[in-house]
Amino acid sequence: MSLPSVPTSESNAPSLLANVRVVLCQTSHPGNIGACARAMKTMGLHQLVLVNPKFFPHPEAEAMASRATDVLESARVCENLDQALTGTVYAAASTARQRDLSHAVLSPREAAARLMQEARHGPVALVMGAEKYGLTAEEVNRCSVITMVPASPEYSSLNLAAAVQVFAYELRLAALAPALPQQVFEPATHEELERFYTHLERMLLDVGFLDPVAPRRLMQRMRRLFARAHLEREEVSILRGILAAAQEAARKERKVD
Amino acid sequence: MSLPSVPTSESNAPSLLANVRVVLCQTSHPGNIGACARAMKTMGLHQLVLVNPKFFPHPEAEAMASRATDVLESARVCENLDQALTGTVYAAASTARQRDLSHAVLSPREAAARLMQEARHGPVALVMGAEKYGLTAEEVNRCSVITMVPASPEYSSLNLAAAVQVFAYELRLAALAPALPQQVFEPATHEELERFYTHLERMLLDVGFLDPVAPRRLMQRMRRLFARAHLEREEVSILRGILAAAQEAARKERKVD
Repeated sequence: MSLPSVPTSESNAPSLLANVRVVLCQTSHPGNIGACARAMKTMGLHQLVLVNPKFFPHPEAEAMASRATDVLESARVCENLDQALTGTVYAAASTARQRDLSHAVLSPREAAARLMQEARHGPVALVMGAEKYGLTAEEVNRCSVITMVPASPEYSSLNLAAAVQVFAYELRLAALAPALPQQVFEPATHEELERFYTHLERMLLDVGFLDPVAPRRLMQRMRRLFARAHLEREEVSILRGILAAAQEAARKERKVD
Repeated sequence: MSLPSVPTSESNAPSLLANVRVVLCQTSHPGNIGACARAMKTMGLHQLVLVNPKFFPHPEAEAMASRATDVLESARVCENLDQALTGTVYAAASTARQRDLSHAVLSPREAAARLMQEARHGPVALVMGAEKYGLTAEEVNRCSVITMVPASPEYSSLNLAAAVQVFAYELRLAALAPALPQQVFEPATHEELERFYTHLERMLLDVGFLDPVAPRRLMQRMRRLFARAHLEREEVSILRGILAAAQEAARKERKVD
């Protein structure tokens, strides 16, 4: 595919890219943070969010950022992924390996196209795990989709900033690509989704479907299912209305017992 | 990480990628050489050629190579670009800026496709310039084509290894069928889905959420939501289990009323 030289979309690209957060979780090496900042800026990305970085700020980060120290300076440091994803309408989790019971897996190209599509509606995020172990299952479960750089089976360990460079490159190409058809409905935000999952879990307990002794796998499956559906705000309202109705039924039942 | 299980293209890819030389000219920082080796190996490239490196071998190169030190060990050091390109049938020169030259300029994607096409006939090369100044006009003139990573006009200076990562990634995609591993679950059949929707509607009536007077739009929305999720057979089972649990709660409630 050649780079589309469409002036109109070119002018939209910066605003779409401005809606992208690159979220680095538990980064160990400050040099990698700097290198990621550089990779981002070369592709027109500026919003860096750090979840519990081991060292930040740090001279090595600045050294590796080269002329992207402005990205470091405006970086936001968060305590957990939920904070980092607040307000986002879509988040892609980068993982290096296939996971059991995973979300849908998109290629970087597909993920970039989707992120740019959603970026028309609100902030979106690319979420990168720690250097050694990547994202935890819990972190992945907070995202909308998994994306994976197709690496050699012989050696699949890309440097963190190298992976960010690949995604940033694909995001830039996707942002420059001709506009995609608009989604008509408003997508739910991360917080709305998390409140929905909490509500769902409560309802499943209330109606006696969720076993509190071994609750995990069920919620993971539910998250995976609804992540694929990419719920709209109004759908979340309807679903929570259904949950409340079922809870009401269960509540009345218990009163009687 | 697993790879696409497409036997035909998968089996061709290694031999095509084995025909690619990555040529680094006058590299100043040995760490960059190591990082390039790592970027190459993650994408299945192994032939590294160094034209007049400032320092090589070097401990920093080894440190940055991580588990790609074998690429460093087998690297060939040359005195000039002609030596490095001996035997090649096609060479793409990576440049960071538009040049006033007669060469065609290809995007990394186009260049990768072309390199893989030519790699069927003999060795091909991706040629990268020095960190600060890139390739000289003379070096570019020894190549078949120019390729350029489409960077932000605001800051277009990719780290050398980051640029190699982008090209290596595009080369791997060009060599491989682009299919990504998807976990294959059994999709629900049309009948299973229809039974689920019937069950859902019944449950919504039972818990008092669906108004029988004006029921239509709600079920339509539910269908639209779950159609997007493209439900699996097992998910339908789980969802129907939840519906049954909620109905059970509602049933007990009604008994009492």
